Amino acid sequence: MALTGRRKWLNEVIFGTDTPAGRNFDVFLIWAILVSVGLVLLASVERIAGRYGETLFALEWFFTALFTVEYFLRIYCAVERRRYIFSFYGIVDLLAILPSYLALVYTGASYLLVVRLLRVLRIFRVLKLVRYLRDANVLLRSFGLARRKILVFYASVLVMCVIFGALMFLVEGPGHGFTSIPKSVYWAIVTITTVGYGDISPHTVLGQAIASMTMLIGYSIIAVPTGIVTAELASELHQERSLRRCDNCSRAGHDRDAEYCKYCGYKLEDLHAEL
Amino acid sequence: MALTGRRKWLNEVIFGTDTPAGRNFDVFLIWAILVSVGLVLLASVERIAGRYGETLFALEWFFTALFTVEYFLRIYCAVERRRYIFSFYGIVDLLAILPSYLALVYTGASYLLVVRLLRVLRIFRVLKLVRYLRDANVLLRSFGLARRKILVFYASVLVMCVIFGALMFLVEGPGHGFTSIPKSVYWAIVTITTVGYGDISPHTVLGQAIASMTMLIGYSIIAVPTGIVTAELASELHQERSLRRCDNCSRAGHDRDAEYCKYCGYKLEDLHAEL
Amino acid sequence: MALTGRRKWLNEVIFGTDTPAGRNFDVFLIWAILVSVGLVLLASVERIAGRYGETLFALEWFFTALFTVEYFLRIYCAVERRRYIFSFYGIVDLLAILPSYLALVYTGASYLLVVRLLRVLRIFRVLKLVRYLRDANVLLRSFGLARRKILVFYASVLVMCVIFGALMFLVEGPGHGFTSIPKSVYWAIVTITTVGYGDISPHTVLGQAIASMTMLIGYSIIAVPTGIVTAELASELHQERSLRRCDNCSRAGHDRDAEYCKYCGYKLEDLHAEL
Amino acid sequence: MALTGRRKWLNEVIFGTDTPAGRNFDVFLIWAILVSVGLVLLASVERIAGRYGETLFALEWFFTALFTVEYFLRIYCAVERRRYIFSFYGIVDLLAILPSYLALVYTGASYLLVVRLLRVLRIFRVLKLVRYLRDANVLLRSFGLARRKILVFYASVLVMCVIFGALMFLVEGPGHGFTSIPKSVYWAIVTITTVGYGDISPHTVLGQAIASMTMLIGYSIIAVPTGIVTAELASELHQERSLRRCDNCSRAGHDRDAEYCKYCGYKLEDLHAEL
Repeated sequence: MALTGRRKWLNEVIFGTDTPAGRNFDVFLIWAILVSVGLVLLASVERIAGRYGETLFALEWFFTALFTVEYFLRIYCAVERRRYIFSFYGIVDLLAILPSYLALVYTGASYLLVVRLLRVLRIFRVLKLVRYLRDANVLLRSFGLARRKILVFYASVLVMCVIFGALMFLVEGPGHGFTSIPKSVYWAIVTITTVGYGDISPHTVLGQAIASMTMLIGYSIIAVPTGIVTAELASELHQERSLRRCDNCSRAGHDRDAEYCKYCGYKLEDLHAEL
Repeated sequence: MALTGRRKWLNEVIFGTDTPAGRNFDVFLIWAILVSVGLVLLASVERIAGRYGETLFALEWFFTALFTVEYFLRIYCAVERRRYIFSFYGIVDLLAILPSYLALVYTGASYLLVVRLLRVLRIFRVLKLVRYLRDANVLLRSFGLARRKILVFYASVLVMCVIFGALMFLVEGPGHGFTSIPKSVYWAIVTITTVGYGDISPHTVLGQAIASMTMLIGYSIIAVPTGIVTAELASELHQERSLRRCDNCSRAGHDRDAEYCKYCGYKLEDLHAEL
Repeated sequence: MALTGRRKWLNEVIFGTDTPAGRNFDVFLIWAILVSVGLVLLASVERIAGRYGETLFALEWFFTALFTVEYFLRIYCAVERRRYIFSFYGIVDLLAILPSYLALVYTGASYLLVVRLLRVLRIFRVLKLVRYLRDANVLLRSFGLARRKILVFYASVLVMCVIFGALMFLVEGPGHGFTSIPKSVYWAIVTITTVGYGDISPHTVLGQAIASMTMLIGYSIIAVPTGIVTAELASELHQERSLRRCDNCSRAGHDRDAEYCKYCGYKLEDLHAEL
Repeated sequence: MALTGRRKWLNEVIFGTDTPAGRNFDVFLIWAILVSVGLVLLASVERIAGRYGETLFALEWFFTALFTVEYFLRIYCAVERRRYIFSFYGIVDLLAILPSYLALVYTGASYLLVVRLLRVLRIFRVLKLVRYLRDANVLLRSFGLARRKILVFYASVLVMCVIFGALMFLVEGPGHGFTSIPKSVYWAIVTITTVGYGDISPHTVLGQAIASMTMLIGYSIIAVPTGIVTAELASELHQERSLRRCDNCSRAGHDRDAEYCKYCGYKLEDLHAEL
């Protein structure tokens, strides 16, 4: 179903990125989202909330109104309304305005904050609109291909964390901060990811020996996801290059930064335009 | 030796993954293992153990009974019984039930916990059963090929840790937490793996200079295992691709996500099916 | 416009790296910069500043005078004066001497220190002069090609840090050090980059669970920039090799460490000389 | 000059690795070195030194005597004596026994410990003897090719650490642990390498913002050495493979784990044997 008249024009402005108006709308929206998220962050600082609380509250509602109007316009001009409403971005759009209204009924401050937090997700929508998305796609496709390998990897890491955590619980015991196996597993994750807060750390000789082993294993394990993603990315890049084809002589294999066909000198299309 | 009758059916259900019954049994077993491990974790939390200790004890024995029955059924229906019993999974299966029975004789709480811990290993058996195993195989083969390089790497890291540890023991001394060379080696491992608990940290200017050097070296060393595994993985992936061959025109080199032969359009076999 | 006489000679000495005089001047300048930066570092140590304050002050002015003379000579002998003054290195050259003079008017100690700090930037100029620059170029080109992918990556990391930070602010609250969302975002960055100071760390069970998730995600995310840069570097290296061409038989594809053409035995040009 | 008689036999045993006697001698030596280093570590633990001090002292001298005899035998049977004495391993061999004798004259405990520390270096000699050396060579060659790129990288990291350190010194000041620029540079190194002890950490909002930037930059920088080494290793592995040549049909390009020529079925030589 093709849209006509005002709905078509609105659709091009709000959903589209091809016309100048559509582009300007997207840029404006990105800034509005960033500013509103910035306000949520500021409002969480006690000193600022105490002094500028009312101004922040007013601005909060200004943005809520703005995004509410935008949400209904999106529904109005969507090609398939039901599909938009239940799409990922449709749900995020709704969640980004709902909490402010919910805060009118339940005055609990903590609830209000959860509401504001969800608006942060709106920033993802930005990625949908700008040209960086194509690179995000390459990254996501690499992750997609590596999905199963990464799952196997995470399962192994978790099993190791549980085993090392339980071992440390037995060796160090509640006296040194390892109060339960779940807490020891938390310690193992902190250690194996090389974060190392130091809020819990081994004190016995045996505990430090096991901790050293955990670290060295974590150290070598860090190589695995990097290796997986790198290998996938490298083959993605290779494929990207071999996909590049001259429109004149139709030979492929041009470098990604090449502007002219190396065989016939014809101007090459932008690489990303084809994808 | 081919099995017949009930033994054959049991074997297909318990060891096999090709029939619906075999698949369901595996899924059920994975959940049972995860739940029983979760119970061990909960039982280690003092507050929960105090309130629900009896329930947890009962569930503990329920799962022990379940896994015991399963263990004997596995022996009963194995193609080569002796081989199963002394295989890696056979031993893990036994270790996962033994500790509960040992706890009846020796009432030491700590022993009891070690017993529970070993049951955690059962989760590895899950990996044997599901399709993720193929990817685990690619990872393991990469590790296998890189085995010797990784050993050289670990030997060098350990030598460096001992030398830097001894240096710091001399420079900082017992007054700043470096109470012995083994403890200083523990500090060196914590530092070189970039974990950095901060439970021991240099206080003198010379000590901080040596620590800085240790970190920068560790920083560049982190590249080595990643480089090794990535290089092996990349060549594994490359080989995987070149192995893919069309059954119709028998030309190779198809992309891993390709479904049809790019030369003759024939439906390609699943890549992993051949391996 | 070609320079003549004294200006041409000075230009060759100061800007050039091809004549022995030009090379010696660069080496001398690098050492002067390193020593002067070293003095700024020493002067910041209270004990040293108390004892050798006057000597350091005198040396400070000696180097300021030296670099001032050098700055005006550079302007004098530059091919295009305006272009040099407003180039990156021209501005850094000016900033490296300005603060000492500003310190004469405003005696504020803190300002004086900012002045000294900027001189540190002068060390970058060193890179312009020495032969390591070619390798820096390979690195920079790889970064350039990966620019957009790295930007997408940083945007995603920051969004994740804001979301996890806000979550932890709600879960842990001001009582456990998470005093505001910006501070919680700081915690999220400290955690996701695996730095893990431990100045703020979760204390509740739910907080530790969310922190564990943050770490595991950060752990897998660390793979992305590595993967991007590695893939770009590998294709750079590959291109470097395929660019290498024998002057005699003009066949390409020689190894980077090859000194003679593998087809005709002719001495190969230095690889970097062509780039 | 070819050796004859007893000297030749000794040379084969002590320096060689081809005869069973030479192999056994090496294995014995490796164990002796590991045990003697272990004793140095134990002697540094106060509790153990207090109880078993005399035994450790006796064993210390037993190993010193053993290694002294070995050192003189090495000189006796070396093909070119002067060359052995001044080679890297010759100097390490001497340094590994000297400190015990020096401790007789200067009874300072700290000196004695330095002496023991140097003996730790002997473990490197182990690498010379065993077959893992070939893999160490591949690693070292990769490092060699990447040498200049890694130097540029380290220079940039150090410049960044000095600049960020000076910035934090100005922003946080001595009140929050940043007592001098060198100490702030130490903090910057601890942060940029993601070690993060937490002994010094920012307390002001601006300081935490700068620290966050430092971390995110360090996070993306960690990609560079990994990328360099991986790219070099991958091309090393590629070269290794293309070097593999069948003795029968002399075609190259065999997989590293291949045992038979894929063109004529002839048994392939061990890959490493040729290198």
